[in-house]
This record gives sequence, structure tokens and C-alpha cells, in this order.
Amino acid sequence: MADWLAALTRRADLRAKAGLTRRLHPRAAADAVVDLAGNDYLGLSTHPQVIAAAAQALSRYGLGATGSRLVRGSTEAHHALEDTLAGWLGTERALVFSSGYLANVGAVRALVRPRTLLVSDAHNHASLIDGCRISGAQTVVTPHADVAAVAAALAAAPGRPAVVVTESVFSVDGDLAPLVDLHRVAREHGALLLVDDAHGLGVTGPAGAGAVAAAGLAGEPDVVVTATLSKALGGAGGVVAGPAEFVRHLVETARTFIYDTALPPAVAAGVHAAVEVARTGDDRRAVLTERAATAVRRLRAAGLDVSTPDAAVVSVTAPSPQAATEWAAACRDRGVAVGCFRPPSTPDSRSRLRLTIGAGVPRADFEHALEVIVECAP
Amino acid sequence: MADWLAALTRRADLRAKAGLTRRLHPRAAADAVVDLAGNDYLGLSTHPQVIAAAAQALSRYGLGATGSRLVRGSTEAHHALEDTLAGWLGTERALVFSSGYLANVGAVRALVRPRTLLVSDAHNHASLIDGCRISGAQTVVTPHADVAAVAAALAAAPGRPAVVVTESVFSVDGDLAPLVDLHRVAREHGALLLVDDAHGLGVTGPAGAGAVAAAGLAGEPDVVVTATLSKALGGAGGVVAGPAEFVRHLVETARTFIYDTALPPAVAAGVHAAVEVARTGDDRRAVLTERAATAVRRLRAAGLDVSTPDAAVVSVTAPSPQAATEWAAACRDRGVAVGCFRPPSTPDSRSRLRLTIGAGVPRADFEHALEVIVECAP
Repeated sequence: MADWLAALTRRADLRAKAGLTRRLHPRAAADAVVDLAGNDYLGLSTHPQVIAAAAQALSRYGLGATGSRLVRGSTEAHHALEDTLAGWLGTERALVFSSGYLANVGAVRALVRPRTLLVSDAHNHASLIDGCRISGAQTVVTPHADVAAVAAALAAAPGRPAVVVTESVFSVDGDLAPLVDLHRVAREHGALLLVDDAHGLGVTGPAGAGAVAAAGLAGEPDVVVTATLSKALGGAGGVVAGPAEFVRHLVETARTFIYDTALPPAVAAGVHAAVEVARTGDDRRAVLTERAATAVRRLRAAGLDVSTPDAAVVSVTAPSPQAATEWAAACRDRGVAVGCFRPPSTPDSRSRLRLTIGAGVPRADFEHALEVIVECAP
Repeated sequence: MADWLAALTRRADLRAKAGLTRRLHPRAAADAVVDLAGNDYLGLSTHPQVIAAAAQALSRYGLGATGSRLVRGSTEAHHALEDTLAGWLGTERALVFSSGYLANVGAVRALVRPRTLLVSDAHNHASLIDGCRISGAQTVVTPHADVAAVAAALAAAPGRPAVVVTESVFSVDGDLAPLVDLHRVAREHGALLLVDDAHGLGVTGPAGAGAVAAAGLAGEPDVVVTATLSKALGGAGGVVAGPAEFVRHLVETARTFIYDTALPPAVAAGVHAAVEVARTGDDRRAVLTERAATAVRRLRAAGLDVSTPDAAVVSVTAPSPQAATEWAAACRDRGVAVGCFRPPSTPDSRSRLRLTIGAGVPRADFEHALEVIVECAP
């Protein structure tokens, strides 16, 4: 019986030897850290309108939703948010889940019919991969951003229902999927396109409506969009947006929607306020674009291997998992938080620092953080 | 391409004909409905201490956690809650997830090693079932609450690692699993026991510490407990509690923990306050026990088929899915919210009303609601 704990310890020891230990670092509310690790791209998690809306809903509804959406958890705050999200994203309808993870699992699964083929990008997020796995559908994993490989996979399954599954802005390297080409190829083969716009929503696109809108694909009847409400919108939860028939299908069949307590009403109300701010946030988005370019320029000038960001995620190669850990720790010791991504959280064998640009970080702090990253580099 | 939407509509039509349509009913903050549908057993979602703690954390931290727990999402509010939960539940450590669904999926998966056999109760929640499925482990589904069947399944797999997976208080019928016997059988075979105490935590056990604690199994090294923070604790999120080695294993490997935005700090703080209230809430728990008995007595006296509740969930048989829907709608029209459970949300083919008892409902309203349920019965 005690065997299992000894076995877990042995596995932890192996991870430690490989430099793959993960530790939680609790932060205080008032920490003075310069944040280049979080996903609060527009600084909306602390925006006065967001806090005020959440606080009001907290006092009106209470803390929790008290039940699943279909039983007792649907409040007017949820429905108002869903209407606004659909309008922003340019889809017929939108449905809010309690997390982006559950939204992705629910969306992938709901798109699967008998004999469906899933064509999934090699860099896709864990939640999309889990959705593919639990759907039970045959899944072809195509090389990253490889439209020809997607076309070949679809061509190899003529007459079968198929879904192309991709992120828009990929979470580790920050590059943008070739959405227009993927959609063209999908449509040529009668396939659907599912895009996780978690790192695009609020950051890119007309009025911040995301990378799908930027690609001109908003509202297409063969496109389904998912996103988190926890990144540029500063809150929590996820959303699936698309044709009304599909959203109805989710409400009636998606296990991760039906059997899950609804998002707290205060969070829904706060995110709703964040959408209103984000829609008019072109100035904030311009800051992101400029800072991403600045970061690339500065870090490359120091000889670092830096990705070419399409949004607000910048990836910097580390020579090893241990070096990544030590680099991130050295930055943290000097008051700069950066993401430390090592296998299996990276789509290849490379470890990286991941920098997420935040418009809410003071300019001087941002520039100082870049210097710290350079000075701490292995 | 439009085919897929037509196909979804055909399936929706089939569900409608079978009485299995599901619709969202948004509620206003100030609705005057008597709630026998939600899971706010102790009325803590609106408790002043809970609201105050959440409001304070909202203003201090902002709305969202801004990242996953390992990147930027761990706050002192999360860690304080985890320490308190572990102390309450009597386990070495506890780890908070953003939902109970993700906690269950993560826990089941993390317990699976090569060749592991999962032995899962036929009435288990969708999230436990999904955890079994996505783990890839061989899963034997045993008849509900059948200890002999569990023993036989374990005996048929000698020498293999095994995990017995069960809820404590089952969510649809409200009956309690034979936890002591399940643990005895599991230990005899060197198997682990995973208990989802979602409907037991706060409602039963010493100081409300749940059904696992009530069974004397708190802190056993071969027992892992999961629960939601969204029912008796009135908030959102989930928790996995158990030996320190196992919680470390979750932090380092559980996909639904690692790749998911953390619970909002305000929710963590609000739930923390709720735990403090719940621990001293024996008076509220006494109300639940008495009301559950009252509900059974009154509804049986009216000739209805009623489950025997072990906690605060009461199930009332409906003659058909359509009848259940109409019954629940009639109650709602008269100001009483009840749960309406139809296939596939029920573990058998029977449809039911599910009544959840809330200590926060005024006594007269509760008794009136029972009369309404009887008068609206088909």
C-alpha cells in the first residue's frame, strides 16, 4: 500500500535529476514584481470598471453560481456576457464555460460524429489534445502550421466528416496559425475549422475581436471559435462561439458544460465589463505591438534566440531545462517574473523562457525587465 | 458544409420528441424563487463573511489569477485555502483546481500507472467517468454500491495496481457509498480508494469535514479525496486532498492543473471564509438533516416515490422525461426551483426531480415548496 507513495517519490526524483521539478510560488497581492509571465495582456484584471462590475455582482448574487448552468447556475450576468461575446466575436451565439480547458474539451467532443477525423496541429494546447483523446475520434497530428499536411490528411479521408483543430496564437512560441489557408483547405474538403483564440482575443483583430476576426473568418458557418476569459479579459472561464445550432448542441449534450458548476456570476459580470473596455482598447493593443517588437530587438541584440511574435507572446530559447529554471529564478530574485517552459510543456524538446507582454506594466519597469533578462541569461 | 448544422438540428429534434430538450433559464439576482435546486446547502454563497472576504481579495488582487498556478496564478489566498482545507479534511495536503470537474479528471489520471485497473461505481459523476476514460486505464464499472462486485473485480486482477473510484453522497439519488467496506476491500487487495466528496463536504462528518471523515478514513495513506468548493462552500473550484507525495505529483504532472488558469483569488478567499463558517456550522447541518427527513415524510405521504437521503439530496421519481420536465416547469411557475434530471443525466433510465435542501431557505418557504411539489405532481 505504501508502495504507491514510494513510486511517486522515485518519479519525482527522476524529474528533479532532469531539471523538471515544478514548484508553486505563492505571490502576495502587493508584490512589486514586474510581470512578464501572466496573461493579463491589457491590464484588465485590475481595471476599475472590471472590479466595480464584479464587486456589484458579488454583492447582488453572492459568491458562487450555486449550481450547473442548466439547474440553477444561469444568471442574467451569464446571458448578458454571452450576448456581448457573440456580438464582439461576430458569431451567432456564444456559450460560457467555467474554464477554457473545459470549453475546449467540450467543443472538440461536440464536433465529433461517427467516423469523424480530427486533424490537430502538433503545437496544440493540452486541453485541445485532451478533447481529441476523450472524443474517441481518429486523430491525425500534423506538423506545426503545415497547411499542406492538413490538406493531405483531409484528402486521405474522403467522404468522412473532419475537423481541423488549431490554436490561433500559439501559447508557447507566440506565432500565428495560417488561419486563412487552413480555412480554405478545410472548406475545400468539407471539413470544419476549430480555432482556440485564447491568446488572440483582446490582443489582435478589429476592436480586439481576435485572430479569427482578423482573418476575416468571424461568423463563417464552418468555423467554431473557443477562447479563455482569463487572459486579455482578466477574469476566468472560457467561451465557445459559433452557429446557433452548435451552441444549442453544446447546451444539450456537452458533458463539461452540463455537469459542471457555472462560472461565478461576479466573474461573468467582471469579464463583461472587461469586454467593453477591450473593445475600445486600440491604444492598449498598440502598446503591446510596440513592446513585443522592442523585446525582440533588445533580446536579439544580446545574442539570444528569440521567436518572432505575432501577438504578445515572446519565446526565448534556453540551453537546457536546468538553465531555464535557473534563468527564471535569477530573474525572479531580481524582481522580474517570466514564464519557464520545459518539457512536457513545450511542443518540442527545447526549454524556453516565455515572456508575455502586458500593457499595464509601467514602461520603465518593462525596459528594466528586459535588461534583467539579458543580464541573467546563461 | 451546411450539412453539419442540419445534422445537429435533426438530433435536437429527436431529443425534443423524447422529452430531452434542455434549456437555460437565466435568473435575476433578486428572484423570489424558493431554491430546492441549487447546491448552496449551508447558504454560504451569500454569507456576509464570505462576501466580505471575496470583496477584499477582489480589490487587492484584481479579478483573475492572470495565469496558471505554476506560472503566475498562485497567490497567498490559494495557499492559505489549501492549508486550511488540508487541516479540515485531515489530509497531509490539499490542492485547489479551477473546477471540481478538472480536479476529478486530474486525480483519476494521476492515480493511474501502467497496468492500473480502475473499478468505478455505475452511478459515478461524469467527471470521474471522463477521468477514467482519458486515463486510458482498463476500467471495470461495478453495479452501484456493490462491495462484493468491487471485491470480485479486484480479486480478478491480482498483482496489478488498482483504484476504487466512487462518490460519497451520490449526486442524483443522494445515497451514501459504503465507504468503510469499500476501503476495507480496497486495502485487502492493495488497492487505493478515490472518493469524490462533493455532496458530503460541509454537509456531513465531524465539523462538516465530509463523508470520508465521517467514515473514519481521513488521512489514510491509501485514500484520496476530491470535492467541489461550489456546493456547501458556496463558491467555485475543486480540491484534491491526500498524501503530500500525491499532491506533489499532481503539481508536477496533472494536465488539468498545469495547463489551466488558476481559480480567481477572490473566489479562493471567499471559499476560505466559507470553510471557517462551515466548520462551526453544526446548527446549519442539523437543519439540513431535519429538513431532509421532513421532505421524505411529506412527499411519501402524498404517494410519491422518494429516495432515502443520507445527506441533503432527495430524489423523487417521475413517470417519464416529459412528465419530469412539466413537473419542474409547473413548480417553477409557482416560484419553486427544483432539479429536473433525465437521461443521460441519470444513472438508470428513470427521470427524477432532484431536491437539494438548503439551510438558508426560510422555514415557511421550504414547507410551502414541498406543498407545491406535491400539488404539481403528475
